[in-house]
Amino acid sequence: MSLSLAPATGLNTLLSLEAVKPDAFLGGGPELGWERIYGGQVVAQALMAAGLTVNAEHIPHSLHAYFVRAGDEKRPVLYEVERVRDGRSFTTRQVIAYQAGGAILNLIASFQVSEKGEDVQGITMPSLAKTPEEAATTGTDLYFEHRIAHFAKEPEPRVLVWMRTKEAIEEGPLARACALAYISDEHPLGVARLPHPLGMEWEKTMSASLDHAIWFHRPFDPHEWLLFDLEGHGVANSRGLAIARIFDAKGTHVATLAQEGLIRPRR
Amino acid sequence: MSLSLAPATGLNTLLSLEAVKPDAFLGGGPELGWERIYGGQVVAQALMAAGLTVNAEHIPHSLHAYFVRAGDEKRPVLYEVERVRDGRSFTTRQVIAYQAGGAILNLIASFQVSEKGEDVQGITMPSLAKTPEEAATTGTDLYFEHRIAHFAKEPEPRVLVWMRTKEAIEEGPLARACALAYISDEHPLGVARLPHPLGMEWEKTMSASLDHAIWFHRPFDPHEWLLFDLEGHGVANSRGLAIARIFDAKGTHVATLAQEGLIRPRR
Repeated sequence: MSLSLAPATGLNTLLSLEAVKPDAFLGGGPELGWERIYGGQVVAQALMAAGLTVNAEHIPHSLHAYFVRAGDEKRPVLYEVERVRDGRSFTTRQVIAYQAGGAILNLIASFQVSEKGEDVQGITMPSLAKTPEEAATTGTDLYFEHRIAHFAKEPEPRVLVWMRTKEAIEEGPLARACALAYISDEHPLGVARLPHPLGMEWEKTMSASLDHAIWFHRPFDPHEWLLFDLEGHGVANSRGLAIARIFDAKGTHVATLAQEGLIRPRR
Repeated sequence: MSLSLAPATGLNTLLSLEAVKPDAFLGGGPELGWERIYGGQVVAQALMAAGLTVNAEHIPHSLHAYFVRAGDEKRPVLYEVERVRDGRSFTTRQVIAYQAGGAILNLIASFQVSEKGEDVQGITMPSLAKTPEEAATTGTDLYFEHRIAHFAKEPEPRVLVWMRTKEAIEEGPLARACALAYISDEHPLGVARLPHPLGMEWEKTMSASLDHAIWFHRPFDPHEWLLFDLEGHGVANSRGLAIARIFDAKGTHVATLAQEGLIRPRR
């Protein structure tokens, strides 16, 4: 038997998972031509799978994930959710994403009932960012646009990128969080590897994302421009860490992201 | 039946777990008098449980965890490990820590075979830190010493703390990583809540650590002074994020840490 899901026709479709049993879901995606599934797809669908088992009043406030094997973009992915805890204020889930060869990702995520409270922003948007209108468009992607607003390799790697989804994302903080997870996997690996002497030479190196973490601080719309302020933290033992603060166009700090990446010279 | 483990007499003892079946371990700890188990104990023991199921050549390079319920320090904790993947270079584990009321923590961790490669440090130790000798000693803790080397609430929270374990930690990167995990839970919550108007008034607020992530970049000895350079990232929806870079006394960037904390005014 050959099972495959219809390729996703847009980001909202990609986030529409197919329930196969209680707390288990199938997800498919487009063939982008890289053979490996784009990591942001698996993180986004794993977060959606977790969210589908959670009361809608509990909205995602953070996720942590490991990429454990390359996914095959020609095949569907099975997401199995474990209900770690259902609390009044907080709910915790863990998810393993499987394909035939075994787990391709594991993710843990936490959901919180919306709470009123003080709002004190501790981080400000960097003034050196070009506006989306001034910034250079880079490549073309199926589901999002991105424009480089600043690029520095030294003294410390610092890359500013505006990103937004091409499609409006359906209402609701879960889908919006999943859409941000999707687009957020595009740039961290490039910044994490930048301190390496071969950091800009992709052909001479083998590289992969190792993990991915996002903290969602304040509401946002991923169909509006968001600025990713990415910093590289050096390279050792073939690994580099990137941390990014994410702002909306008004300068509101909406999320923070961390990703460790692998970089090795090709033999 | 009332089961309790002998209280740990030191940090090495605390990290010596009792195997109860394949891939499941019991851990105990001291009664510090807070009733709730100190979070660093559960993170450290969960990482040790994961590491005990991994070939010793694979050493921990990162962990991500959620604190899901308060633990009872009078009772042992059961750590159940799932082997997500055994790879040649990387191994992935997930762990749930249980007590009678359910899961108290879930953790995912990744282990890597040591790789030679370029070493480029992207972050430098802050020059405003006092030396451990100049810095003020704070309180007394059972297993570690800590000295505040800098403290600022504004404009952005920034706290520098020297820490070291009282005991020499037994040889090996796993035990050292667990010891760092133990001491690393002491200060992030205090910094995460600092931007809140009641950030320094613990009695007027309810507060708890929500998650914990550590990336281990380079070798270190937790029995030698380590500088934690902690930054608070603001507060919204009753949550605040702290990020810390950890340096040894020579200025080597040995690890990075992130923790989100909860802060609510008491009614």
